Amino acid sequence: MVEPFSRSFKGLIIWCILLYMIQCSLATSNTTGGHFHKWEVAYMYWSPDGVENVVMGINGQFPGPTIRARAGDIVHVQLTNKLHTEGVVIHWHGIRQKGTPWADGTASISQCVINPGETFDYRFTVDRAGTYFYHGHYGMQRSAGLYGALIVDVAEGEKEPFHYDGEFDLLLSDWWHQSVHHQEVGLSSKPMRWIGEPQALLVNGRGQYGCSMAAAHYGNSSLSQCNITGNEQWAPYILHVDPNKTYRIRIASTTALASLNLAIGNHTMKVVEADGNYLQPFETNDLDIYSGESYSVLLKTNQDSSQNYWISLGVRGREPQTPPALTLLNYRTTSASRLPLSPPPVTPRWDDYAHSKAFSNKIKALDHKSIPKPSPTYHRRIVLLNTQNKMNGYTKWSINNVSLSLPATPYLGSIRFGLQNAFDQTKPPEGFPGHYDIMKPPVNSNTTTGNGVYMLGYYSTVDVILQNANALKENVSEIHPWHLHGHDFWLLGYGEGKFTKSDEKKLNLKNPPYRNTAVIFPYGWTALRFVADNPGVWAFHCHIEPHLHMGMGVVFAEGVQHVAKIPKEAVSCGVTGKKFMTGSHLG
Amino acid sequence: MVEPFSRSFKGLIIWCILLYMIQCSLATSNTTGGHFHKWEVAYMYWSPDGVENVVMGINGQFPGPTIRARAGDIVHVQLTNKLHTEGVVIHWHGIRQKGTPWADGTASISQCVINPGETFDYRFTVDRAGTYFYHGHYGMQRSAGLYGALIVDVAEGEKEPFHYDGEFDLLLSDWWHQSVHHQEVGLSSKPMRWIGEPQALLVNGRGQYGCSMAAAHYGNSSLSQCNITGNEQWAPYILHVDPNKTYRIRIASTTALASLNLAIGNHTMKVVEADGNYLQPFETNDLDIYSGESYSVLLKTNQDSSQNYWISLGVRGREPQTPPALTLLNYRTTSASRLPLSPPPVTPRWDDYAHSKAFSNKIKALDHKSIPKPSPTYHRRIVLLNTQNKMNGYTKWSINNVSLSLPATPYLGSIRFGLQNAFDQTKPPEGFPGHYDIMKPPVNSNTTTGNGVYMLGYYSTVDVILQNANALKENVSEIHPWHLHGHDFWLLGYGEGKFTKSDEKKLNLKNPPYRNTAVIFPYGWTALRFVADNPGVWAFHCHIEPHLHMGMGVVFAEGVQHVAKIPKEAVSCGVTGKKFMTGSHLG
Repeated sequence: MVEPFSRSFKGLIIWCILLYMIQCSLATSNTTGGHFHKWEVAYMYWSPDGVENVVMGINGQFPGPTIRARAGDIVHVQLTNKLHTEGVVIHWHGIRQKGTPWADGTASISQCVINPGETFDYRFTVDRAGTYFYHGHYGMQRSAGLYGALIVDVAEGEKEPFHYDGEFDLLLSDWWHQSVHHQEVGLSSKPMRWIGEPQALLVNGRGQYGCSMAAAHYGNSSLSQCNITGNEQWAPYILHVDPNKTYRIRIASTTALASLNLAIGNHTMKVVEADGNYLQPFETNDLDIYSGESYSVLLKTNQDSSQNYWISLGVRGREPQTPPALTLLNYRTTSASRLPLSPPPVTPRWDDYAHSKAFSNKIKALDHKSIPKPSPTYHRRIVLLNTQNKMNGYTKWSINNVSLSLPATPYLGSIRFGLQNAFDQTKPPEGFPGHYDIMKPPVNSNTTTGNGVYMLGYYSTVDVILQNANALKENVSEIHPWHLHGHDFWLLGYGEGKFTKSDEKKLNLKNPPYRNTAVIFPYGWTALRFVADNPGVWAFHCHIEPHLHMGMGVVFAEGVQHVAKIPKEAVSCGVTGKKFMTGSHLG
Repeated sequence: MVEPFSRSFKGLIIWCILLYMIQCSLATSNTTGGHFHKWEVAYMYWSPDGVENVVMGINGQFPGPTIRARAGDIVHVQLTNKLHTEGVVIHWHGIRQKGTPWADGTASISQCVINPGETFDYRFTVDRAGTYFYHGHYGMQRSAGLYGALIVDVAEGEKEPFHYDGEFDLLLSDWWHQSVHHQEVGLSSKPMRWIGEPQALLVNGRGQYGCSMAAAHYGNSSLSQCNITGNEQWAPYILHVDPNKTYRIRIASTTALASLNLAIGNHTMKVVEADGNYLQPFETNDLDIYSGESYSVLLKTNQDSSQNYWISLGVRGREPQTPPALTLLNYRTTSASRLPLSPPPVTPRWDDYAHSKAFSNKIKALDHKSIPKPSPTYHRRIVLLNTQNKMNGYTKWSINNVSLSLPATPYLGSIRFGLQNAFDQTKPPEGFPGHYDIMKPPVNSNTTTGNGVYMLGYYSTVDVILQNANALKENVSEIHPWHLHGHDFWLLGYGEGKFTKSDEKKLNLKNPPYRNTAVIFPYGWTALRFVADNPGVWAFHCHIEPHLHMGMGVVFAEGVQHVAKIPKEAVSCGVTGKKFMTGSHLG
């Protein structure tokens, strides 16, 4: 009697194994079909700006490979860390990670870092067409070169609300010759040593240090002419176009510091998308773009097709020490080596904030099924004062006088499993004292560090008023582009000075742009609204890499109890690792 | 009925808590009493050689704090990683870690690395008096400056077998201006870029780049005179002595590359200890010391006490590009600022191997109760051919044609818990083909990488013949100091050419030195014997940092099934982490 039973039991096991294998192969084919990417992150020699240096590359490429998918697809990136001593994570900037908060790629927040030699599977749905990018989100690894583009096309059968004949993707960044390891030491030192302005601005990882492509031709350049054959790693990415066509230029900024302005000689642009959401199209001569933002513009190649045209990229908001980045719009009807007749367009002066504000105020959401209408009311309003402060002689950026110091154990696991020793259980402040004078340096500049979490009611509507202020130095207030993970928000408006009740009526509840990044202007405020409908823990921070390093961020959490099975690898460190490590053989 | 029971139950709990607290406070006082150290590892600005750079320091110090304990003590170092993105571990070089193999501080071997923000408790017994040191053992973090001295005095009531009136500790290292992150990229690139010779040799973390303390005074120096007030981080560590005394000078080398020779003007030294074991005392004019070694010498201050004397440190075994390190022996009877009458002693020529071999051959164990007599026979003999090879264009160092590539999951956990997917299950080779010509570059230089383990019989006696050979370039064979973790070995002898049966009778089974580091000379062999009596997994490797990085090591394991409870933190990564992570809430 035992034998047959045993046989059928064996049979059952074989069946189970077979079923499992089929399931696996289905799962694999599902992802390998379009969007399975096997990536290795490693340092390598590279010359982003003509000066050989070390960059953090992916599969030997810098910037990393472009991911291209369709709305609704699952993207699967199997990331192996080939660094020697550093952990790594990758954040998919603009992807909301609904149902996969552990794949948001933020160290200390959504997952344990991937240690050298280890692999993590990022598997997530790209639910909406748009222009996105990805980048490192640990230490200052983004600034080390860990970034690339992520483009999502509309789903099969769907159409964009505008027409174009061709497309270009421009990923903008800035580059320092000093390694981020040294930069981090400087920023964390007493007294702080600032990283300074970048040595070069890069377009798709390419820039020119100490020379200019336009130097010799239009006079008055202190730089020498670049000697470029076109095969260099730092040769410009040229946009080759046919006449009388419409091109979509996708522009995303992953700069560590620089706010940028892009202008194309003789051409205007029509802005149609921001951060993955459609806009009411508007024409512009030049486009402001802050770190963390993305845009699509439409370009009509309707100019003299026997000429080429400069594309200029200049610094905004900080007195530039970095020459503009240049590349060419090349009409295929002429040689790409033919220099434009006119000098490169001059982008607006760095401190022409009126120009920036005018541009920002032009941005309105398109009335489109993909964009939800703003909630007319809010359940909770959090006011976040942005200040620069000192703490025992160290320089910090603080939010309501708390400088974010991320915990060793990622929040997603520690909140999900109720481990209160993983981070500050005190609630971070909802605002700041009414008498605070935002026009002056902090009177008592002593700040504290903390890592408490803003616990948001699940499905509640949250308003955030980002309030800018004077930095430590008199008459200095800086631009900060704030990026929200896991959500888009309605950008209800900008204003000058301290936000007051009377500003309430200025908020745009009709067609505010729906975005994931919003800038605050010097001494101004910016108002956002979003629905806390995404179970997980989400960073909200200044996208300037050294500012975040110095504490400029907060953490939101909502509906964490609804987060389903978190992959082990995402919680295998710190106190969550310890909690789930069981075995009588362990000490 | 319930209440009294409940009360007495409560009482019991309170008692338990009290008992636990007493136990804890006892445990604490036990360690805080002498040897509790709370350390933080962080990068910081420092000028080890007069050029400001970034070093990896401990508690703001470089080199790290000196640990001083007595034989039999428990040392407890609570190490917190304050780096931004790098893991860290610390190896206690020369401490055998009996019963605490997880505290050996070798990444990928004895423990999971300590990630940023996390803390690991190193708790181990220092069972034997001697001169030791500690250093990073992850990537090339030792070379980044993560090291310090560890001095163990004889147990209370015990006596050293020699007398001295005072003591100095000299920790020797070498220093590069290029960061180890860049060095690692170069070594791992195709083609490999060599790190070159160090910019400076350091004594207790202090050296002088681009100048010499002796330049102006004895002619013929191409360097300028150093301008030192004495307060600089790079001011020399001066040995202030009284006349007619005996000083013990403890000398340990944690160089990344340089083999060194130390000589003191007008004085001889009596060598009495090597790697924590007593030697038959012998006089020498100069002392060879290889990376990973330590010595004690006795110095009699019996020279003209109205003078000072130079201490010189020169490079051996590689054509030096680095000027000798200099410091002073200052007789307190004269001013330390008075320069010696004679120029610094000239250390032997870099390629005077006869001198090196003569020195090495003088080293014999003292007949002392603390040093076991060598086993007269062996159970297993492993022959390890040291070659430089290529692999797909990458340059590697290989042992029996396998270049060590460490696994992501530390062996201690994966072997202890039988996880066969953590590393290569193939046995690494016991020797090399008999026809191999060690005098020529490898004929077929294609090597393989691997991470298989030499599984040693518990309590078996193991012989290792380290066989040197020609590197990739004709007529080049380099010095390699091999360091064994977890054990001392009897250094049975050195020889020229290929080890053959006839060499057997040359082995010293009478009074071989008992050590943890042994050098192989160019084109020569070195024979070792040890008893595999320490349950754990142990690295055995060339102590030259870039050579280990390029694969020059093997892994031994013995009696791992006897390893008692391993701390969770030591196995919470990789496949061991995954195995022990259980929880129905995890995916």
